[in-house]
Amino acid sequence: MVERNLGQEIMARLDRLAEFTEDEGQLTRTYLTPVQRAAGEEIIGWMAEAGMSAGFDPAGNVVGRYEGTEPGLPALMTGSHFDTVRNAGRYDGMLGVVAPISVVKALNEQGRRLPFAIEVVGFADEEGVRFQSTLLGSRAIAGTFDTALLDKQDRDGITMAQAMTSYGLDPAKIGDAARRPDEVLAFVEVHIEQGPVLESEGLAAGIVTGIAGANRFNVRMTGLAGHAGTVPMGLRRDAAAAAAEAVLYVETRCQGIESLVGTVGVLAVPNGATNVIPGEAELSLDIRAGEDEVRRAAVADILAEIEAIAQRRNIRLEIEQTHDAPSAGCASWLMSQFADALAAEGLPPRQLASGAGHDSMAFTELTDMAMLFVRCGNGGISHHPDETMTAEDADISARILMRFIESFVPSARSGA
Amino acid sequence: MVERNLGQEIMARLDRLAEFTEDEGQLTRTYLTPVQRAAGEEIIGWMAEAGMSAGFDPAGNVVGRYEGTEPGLPALMTGSHFDTVRNAGRYDGMLGVVAPISVVKALNEQGRRLPFAIEVVGFADEEGVRFQSTLLGSRAIAGTFDTALLDKQDRDGITMAQAMTSYGLDPAKIGDAARRPDEVLAFVEVHIEQGPVLESEGLAAGIVTGIAGANRFNVRMTGLAGHAGTVPMGLRRDAAAAAAEAVLYVETRCQGIESLVGTVGVLAVPNGATNVIPGEAELSLDIRAGEDEVRRAAVADILAEIEAIAQRRNIRLEIEQTHDAPSAGCASWLMSQFADALAAEGLPPRQLASGAGHDSMAFTELTDMAMLFVRCGNGGISHHPDETMTAEDADISARILMRFIESFVPSARSGA
Repeated sequence: MVERNLGQEIMARLDRLAEFTEDEGQLTRTYLTPVQRAAGEEIIGWMAEAGMSAGFDPAGNVVGRYEGTEPGLPALMTGSHFDTVRNAGRYDGMLGVVAPISVVKALNEQGRRLPFAIEVVGFADEEGVRFQSTLLGSRAIAGTFDTALLDKQDRDGITMAQAMTSYGLDPAKIGDAARRPDEVLAFVEVHIEQGPVLESEGLAAGIVTGIAGANRFNVRMTGLAGHAGTVPMGLRRDAAAAAAEAVLYVETRCQGIESLVGTVGVLAVPNGATNVIPGEAELSLDIRAGEDEVRRAAVADILAEIEAIAQRRNIRLEIEQTHDAPSAGCASWLMSQFADALAAEGLPPRQLASGAGHDSMAFTELTDMAMLFVRCGNGGISHHPDETMTAEDADISARILMRFIESFVPSARSGA
Repeated sequence: MVERNLGQEIMARLDRLAEFTEDEGQLTRTYLTPVQRAAGEEIIGWMAEAGMSAGFDPAGNVVGRYEGTEPGLPALMTGSHFDTVRNAGRYDGMLGVVAPISVVKALNEQGRRLPFAIEVVGFADEEGVRFQSTLLGSRAIAGTFDTALLDKQDRDGITMAQAMTSYGLDPAKIGDAARRPDEVLAFVEVHIEQGPVLESEGLAAGIVTGIAGANRFNVRMTGLAGHAGTVPMGLRRDAAAAAAEAVLYVETRCQGIESLVGTVGVLAVPNGATNVIPGEAELSLDIRAGEDEVRRAAVADILAEIEAIAQRRNIRLEIEQTHDAPSAGCASWLMSQFADALAAEGLPPRQLASGAGHDSMAFTELTDMAMLFVRCGNGGISHHPDETMTAEDADISARILMRFIESFVPSARSGA
C-alpha cells in the first residue's frame, strides 16, 4: 500500500523535466540532442535514488532496474517516452516514466522486494520528430529496430548514425538494446489519455483495450482554375468544393461507430485567391479504429466516395498512402489485473481504445502489453502547451500502478 | 466596311505588348512603372500611325483622338486597360486598346471621317495590382478619382504620388484627366469574356448586359484542435468540417440562378497537420450577380447559413466584409446598336452578364456605356498565361466594332 501522496513528487518532476528544452519558451526535446542527454541523466538520478541500477542503453533509452527477491529474475517492464513533439505538453510520455519511479521509490523505502524484477524505461524516441523514426526507442528494446533508419538525416543533414556517435553511442551496437522474451514478463504503460473521454465521464483513469490501427493518405485534387465572376456554376470544376465533399463524407462515415475516427487535418487551396475558382486542393486523411476490419471498411468506403466525387465533378485525383498500421490489442489477462487495481481504488473498470500510437505497440513483438490511461484536462488537449492533468490524478495513477505491481501475477506463457 | 483582315495585325500587336513586362518569363505590367511607360509609348506610336493625336493624360492613361468631320466634336470613346495582373494573359484589357486602333487605322486609310470624334483610351490601372487601386485610370477620366489613393504605398513603400512624380506626372493635376459629360457621347469597351460561355456555345462574340455587383468576405472559424486519434467524432469541434459545409452551401445556393455566382477561393487550415483535428479554418466568399436583389438575397442566405453551421458545431465565427459594389447596367440603346453590328456579321445577339469588373463600370458616372465580349479559348481561362483567343475572333471583333462605329447614332440625351 502506498502511504504517502506521490502526486506532488510526480508533478514536480514533470515540471523539472519540462525545463530541458531545445526551444526557448516552449518544450521541445528530440532524439540524441544534448538536452535529451541532460534530461536522461536527471531521470537516471531519480532512478538511482529509488534503489534502481540505471543508465542509458545502446539506443539511448534510459533503463532502471529494481531487482526482485533475488537478482536476475525476469522483469515486469513499464515506462513511456521522454522525447517530445515540438511545442509539447509536459505530461505526454513523461508521466509514464516518472510515476513508476515514484512507485519503485516507495517500494524501496518500505524495503519491499517482489518475486520479479521491475524495470522502468524512458524511451528516447517515440514521437520521431527529428528523424521521422516513430517508436524507435521501444522498437530497439523489442528487437525490431530498422537499421535503415541510421542513414536518415535531420533537417540539418546530420544522419542518425552521426548523431548517435556524437551522443556517445555506437550505431553498430544498437542491436544490443534488444531484450529476450524470457527476460520480460509483460510491458505496461501509464499514459495521459490525450483525449476528452475520461474527463467527460468524470473518471481519473481507464483501461486501454488496444491501440488503434491507422491509415493515412495525402490527396490532391485538380480541377480547373477560373475567374470567380465569369464562370457559371454549372461549368466549374472547383477543386475546393470536391475537397469539401470529401471532408464531410469522412465525418459522416466515421460518426456513430465506437473507436472509429476519421480526420481531415490538412485542407488547403494552394495559392488560393478570393476571386479565383480553386483549380487545386490538398487534403489529408487519417482513419483509425480499434478493430482492423472496421478501419479497413471505412477506408475502402472513403476512398470509393472520393473517387466518385472526383468523377462526378471531373476532378483529377492523386492519392498517396503514407501510413498503414494494424491495431495492437492489449492482453486481456493484464487488463483484468488493471481492473482489479482500479476497483481497489474505488474506480470502475472503464475500458477505452487508444486512438494514438504508443510505445506499447512495439512490445507486442516481444511480450504481452497493457496500458493505463490517465485523465487529461482542458478537453483532452495534447501535443500542445495547454496539455494538463492534476496532481490528484497523478497520485491516483501511481496508486493504481502500485496496486497492479503488488498483485501482479505473470501469465503461464510469459517469461521463461 | 473593313476590307482587309485586321486580326493578324491585332494579334501581332498583342504579342508585341506582352514583351513589356516587369517579370522575366511572365507578363506583369503595373501602374507607373518604366515598363508601362514603354508599353504606353508603343501604343501612342500605333495611335499616331492610325491618324490620331495621341499622348499620356494626367493620370498616365494613353489617349488617342481621331477627329470627326470637323475638329472638336463630342467623341465616341472606346478602350480598355493596358496594365496587367501578375503572371497575366496577353488579351485581358489589351484587346480593347489594340482592336480600336486597327479600326481607326482602317478608317483613316480610307480617308473616312464620321460626324463625331473617336477617342481610344488605354487605361493605365484597372487591375490595381501595385497600389490596390482598381479602376483608377477610368475613374480619373470619369472624374471620380479618389485623391486619398495618392498616399497608398506599393510593397516597396513608394507612395502613388511619389511614383507619379518619378513617371513625369504631377499628382496635383490628376483631376485634369476628368472629362465633361458633353465631351463624350458614350463609352464602349471590347474585352475578352474571361469565361467559358461563348466558347461553350460556339459564338465569337456577345453583348454584355451589365457588370455584376459583388460582395466579398473573409471568414475565420475557430473550433478546438485535438488529437486525430483520441477525440471521438461526437466530441469534436472541427473547424475544417464547418468550413466544408460553408463551401458546399455557397455552391448549392448559387446554382441554377442565371448570372449569380458564388466562390470560395481561399480555403485553409492554418498549420494543419495530418494527425490534428483542425482548430481553425479560413475561407473567403465572393458572391456576384447581375441583379443586385439576387445578389443581396444570396449573400443574406449564405451568411445566415454560415451562422447556423457555426452555432450547430459550436464554432466561433469572425466575418469581415472586404468588398461591396452594386451592379452597373449597360445602356440598352448601345446594346441594340451592338446587336445590329453582330447581325451584320451574321452573329446572333447573344447577351450575357459580366461577372468580372471592367473600366466600363467607372463610366456610368460620366456617360452611358456598353461592352462587347469576345470568345476566350481554353475553357475561358484568364488572369493566367494560358489565356487565349484566335486571330479570327480578333478580326471578327474588329469588324463588329467597325460596324458599330460606322452606324453609331448618339442617343438624344448623350453628348452636349
